[in-house]
Amino acid sequence: MTAEPAEVVRVDLAFESHDKQVRAPAGVTVFDAASWNGIAIDSTCGGHGTCRKCKVQILEGNVPVGRLDTRAFSVEELRAGWRLACIANAHESLRIHVPPLTTRPKASTVGVGRQVILRPSVVKRALQLAEPSLSDQRSDLRRVLDEITDITANVDPRVLATLPRVLRSADFAVTAVVADDRLIAVEPGDTSDRIFGVAIDLGTTTVVATLMDLTTGTPAAVASALNQQQPFGADVISRISATMLDPQALGRLRELAHQTMAELVADACAQAQVEPAEVYDVAIAGNATMTQIAMGIDPEPLGVAPFIPATDAFPTVLATEVGLAVHPGARAFLFPSLGAYVGGDIIAGALASGMDRDKRLRLFIDIGTNCEIILADGERLLATAAPAGPAFEAASITCGMRAAAGAIEAVAITDEGLSLQVIEDAEPVGICGSGLVDAVAELARIGLLDSSGRFVSDEQAATLAPALAGRLVDREGGRVFVLAEGVDGSQIALSQRDVRELQFAKAAISTGWKLLLQQAGVAERDVQQVLLAGSFGTYLSARNAIRIGLVPKIPALRVVSAGNVAGEGAKMALLSGPERHGATAMIEAITYIELSDRPDFNDLFVDELAFPAS
Amino acid sequence: MTAEPAEVVRVDLAFESHDKQVRAPAGVTVFDAASWNGIAIDSTCGGHGTCRKCKVQILEGNVPVGRLDTRAFSVEELRAGWRLACIANAHESLRIHVPPLTTRPKASTVGVGRQVILRPSVVKRALQLAEPSLSDQRSDLRRVLDEITDITANVDPRVLATLPRVLRSADFAVTAVVADDRLIAVEPGDTSDRIFGVAIDLGTTTVVATLMDLTTGTPAAVASALNQQQPFGADVISRISATMLDPQALGRLRELAHQTMAELVADACAQAQVEPAEVYDVAIAGNATMTQIAMGIDPEPLGVAPFIPATDAFPTVLATEVGLAVHPGARAFLFPSLGAYVGGDIIAGALASGMDRDKRLRLFIDIGTNCEIILADGERLLATAAPAGPAFEAASITCGMRAAAGAIEAVAITDEGLSLQVIEDAEPVGICGSGLVDAVAELARIGLLDSSGRFVSDEQAATLAPALAGRLVDREGGRVFVLAEGVDGSQIALSQRDVRELQFAKAAISTGWKLLLQQAGVAERDVQQVLLAGSFGTYLSARNAIRIGLVPKIPALRVVSAGNVAGEGAKMALLSGPERHGATAMIEAITYIELSDRPDFNDLFVDELAFPAS
Repeated sequence: MTAEPAEVVRVDLAFESHDKQVRAPAGVTVFDAASWNGIAIDSTCGGHGTCRKCKVQILEGNVPVGRLDTRAFSVEELRAGWRLACIANAHESLRIHVPPLTTRPKASTVGVGRQVILRPSVVKRALQLAEPSLSDQRSDLRRVLDEITDITANVDPRVLATLPRVLRSADFAVTAVVADDRLIAVEPGDTSDRIFGVAIDLGTTTVVATLMDLTTGTPAAVASALNQQQPFGADVISRISATMLDPQALGRLRELAHQTMAELVADACAQAQVEPAEVYDVAIAGNATMTQIAMGIDPEPLGVAPFIPATDAFPTVLATEVGLAVHPGARAFLFPSLGAYVGGDIIAGALASGMDRDKRLRLFIDIGTNCEIILADGERLLATAAPAGPAFEAASITCGMRAAAGAIEAVAITDEGLSLQVIEDAEPVGICGSGLVDAVAELARIGLLDSSGRFVSDEQAATLAPALAGRLVDREGGRVFVLAEGVDGSQIALSQRDVRELQFAKAAISTGWKLLLQQAGVAERDVQQVLLAGSFGTYLSARNAIRIGLVPKIPALRVVSAGNVAGEGAKMALLSGPERHGATAMIEAITYIELSDRPDFNDLFVDELAFPAS
Repeated sequence: MTAEPAEVVRVDLAFESHDKQVRAPAGVTVFDAASWNGIAIDSTCGGHGTCRKCKVQILEGNVPVGRLDTRAFSVEELRAGWRLACIANAHESLRIHVPPLTTRPKASTVGVGRQVILRPSVVKRALQLAEPSLSDQRSDLRRVLDEITDITANVDPRVLATLPRVLRSADFAVTAVVADDRLIAVEPGDTSDRIFGVAIDLGTTTVVATLMDLTTGTPAAVASALNQQQPFGADVISRISATMLDPQALGRLRELAHQTMAELVADACAQAQVEPAEVYDVAIAGNATMTQIAMGIDPEPLGVAPFIPATDAFPTVLATEVGLAVHPGARAFLFPSLGAYVGGDIIAGALASGMDRDKRLRLFIDIGTNCEIILADGERLLATAAPAGPAFEAASITCGMRAAAGAIEAVAITDEGLSLQVIEDAEPVGICGSGLVDAVAELARIGLLDSSGRFVSDEQAATLAPALAGRLVDREGGRVFVLAEGVDGSQIALSQRDVRELQFAKAAISTGWKLLLQQAGVAERDVQQVLLAGSFGTYLSARNAIRIGLVPKIPALRVVSAGNVAGEGAKMALLSGPERHGATAMIEAITYIELSDRPDFNDLFVDELAFPAS
């Protein structure tokens, strides 16, 4: 995100051999662009420029000859356009031939139907080394590295401390563990079938850890728990406030985040009978506040205007630095943030949803106290954050409650009258976000709420809906619509103020995506898919979301729940180094639109408060 | 060091603009090769490929166009041979034009008359940043990095923890501290005139720390002390043995090394009124055992055949990991080892002596319990280690002592008789290494020792040297030559066994350099310079060293003492990134010859026991 959003130049890459044409940000490597689009290119080093296996032929367009190319190819081959894909940066449109694979790479389906080629950052190699002698005095480390010449590795100093003993105790039969370009372990014997990683969705409310088997690309165990930071407040703003009031709070919050994650990782490992030392990689997707706190970074500037994160991309840190007792050489990748509100969770979700490569005009909407919206069409990536407030979490609603047993989660008005769906079929005790949307949408549909969101008079109600008119009553503090009788005799009702709260929330969100559509010069009806991220999206009625104008007016089947995409993005980052690069590349590719800075925001917002004509 | 010494290909680089022709290992960058030879090329990033200032024109020879070149130059310029020197790898001989400098770089004289262009790895930049606003929501880190675009920096996670607070408390006027390609600190205000580093000579006996002002290239303070590991034994073998006998010893030795260095650094900082947090870089030159122990690496395989180091090049570690309480982001560079005996101290010494670039045929000899020898002629670099034993440290000599007050350090026989020089003009109490060499050389010259090293009979002595014959007496255990009467009435004498000890030591050494000369196909008389490294070399009489055959028979003026070259090499690594690369490049360039593996070693050794004919 820069002061002046720079236009991201994109190039067209035609993979002639696969009959596939893709667009990618200029400068991307042919290897990454291919990986992102499910085209496998031979590689044993995972794209680090060392194995020289990722040979492709550039049939059209110019890619300068790199130094490594001169080692991998003859002059004739270079002239014929042969290049190593992992160092071939596409600065212009290219036509590319990819030779058939010599080995069949594994792939895994994660995210929103994304097929990910398995290229984890962690690679193991079982080695039988020659024993040293006076005529072969190579150092212990050189002896190991000489056997893995297709991977260039720096060495973790911890490896050296034990290396002489490990080699000699194992009679020089060992397994080298390389993470990215770093030798993080040399283990006695052959341990090459045991490689695990942990994907963590570090939510403000809930934290989920998925233990992934990186040799197969499949989950081995899942564990989830409430974020132990809860006592400091339910939302990011209360946690930021805590750090502003008490200088000890940041340290304590950091510890609680670490503890929550550590317990889940231990739990998942125990479930799958995996030793924590067999976990060599960690990917963490959290919002900007959760991520900064986990790193011990003062979050205060995230919470006050002009809302500034400490960084967009985080340096890769040791997993131990975020409190995880996994392999001591394991590193943790933290998803980058585009801004204070479009954090790593959103970037992970956008990655899992393929927002940077799907060619359809799509909207990604993550509804919460803050709602993040991304508009993409395979070329442009525009994002914004809308201050929706707590209405969808039902916190500010008279009878609001979380989506738990007893919550009215769906409301329908039929000829027979009012029909409610209650979570776990319990007696109703309150209403949650999806129920609220349904109730308002249905009342607006039959006319008990007018298009401005006001309850109609008793007379109008009696005409419009005689069977329900009796539920519309005046109470101290205003008019309400009674949904149900609670178990304790109290009534569960929707107040005029509740309706207003929802209107404010949906107006903030629809103003957001309308401004993005306007910026991109496309019409609402052109949107081909709306992805609703997060658990809220799973329960929301697409039809009613369209009706109240929360999402664009398009066929309801095109409004789909994407599920926990942040967690899926974290898994993808574990399974594929190129996908991990993709997350960082997305930060550069997205243009952020700050709503509060737009002079037309207020006018549009007021227009959006009303319900759309059906 | 490889099993089959590979031939290192060298290329000729003609710097046409400077009228200078240099040879360098193929693959070296033009930037490094120029720096090593005192040719300054514009650069603000120190050779990291980011500032695009190091423009040179390749007049003859081919250097492939790199990706960064395409950003720095127009197509016409690329066609005309313009390249960035820091990414231009010389794989063939080249003729190069270097444009005149736009800024005058500072230089410093260190080592054996080496002129080093000041390019420390640590760079500071004072910045006045724009304050963030709703229309400029760049992250704190991006805001800093955007102002130092000529340096590509990764960020130390510690910087992020305090960054938001530092920027805001300093009203966005800060100083960025970049070490290599890493942002290690952002400090409030302008601190750009305070950059220090510490060069440490980590000897088995003595440790010396030199605090260097990296803005001027001059030493700010020096501190030295005995290595606190002394209680574990005087030499590396006893310390290695200690770790083999007691599993706790390695940890303890490591701590003692850290403690010794830490106290010296604190002392030097106090002397120069420098805050330890102003020390951002550390370079450590130690032998392989000292370096491995300081890193906590099991040294056992260094001490037993086939003598294997854990690694040749050490990863750069945080200074705190070797116990130094300097800036928490400061890193420590440890000189690489060629083998168990040709360690980082020797590589540092060879760097300071310019062994890799001086065109003369030179021998570098570091005399100690183990003697390391390097032969170089600007093209070839051959090295070996000879087990000289403790004779030169006088430990195995009857009346031997360290070079301290009361030690006979020089002996001359004139017409007037025996003339002794005693350290501090004290009463003699023993004899040190240089005195031993003198005594034996002089006795051999006048014939009291025959060419095989045997004391002559009383009769022969009376004829050859009537004035001294009375000093040659028979004692229990053999014949001795009395040098002086000690203060306590005891005699300070040289025994037949002492002479044998010296013969063994000098034979080991001369066998070493003779085999290197033989390997290189050059004659002893062609040697143009012998550099004697270490303190022993400072006191040794060149004439007598030649006489007993310890060094080649060349004019005595060509045998020079190089002083503490290990410490000088460590200073060079602080002052110049290219020189630091040079140390690592040297490891690749040197061919190691293992003496004990040579079938002709024993024959040559026996020949070398005798004194050469004068």
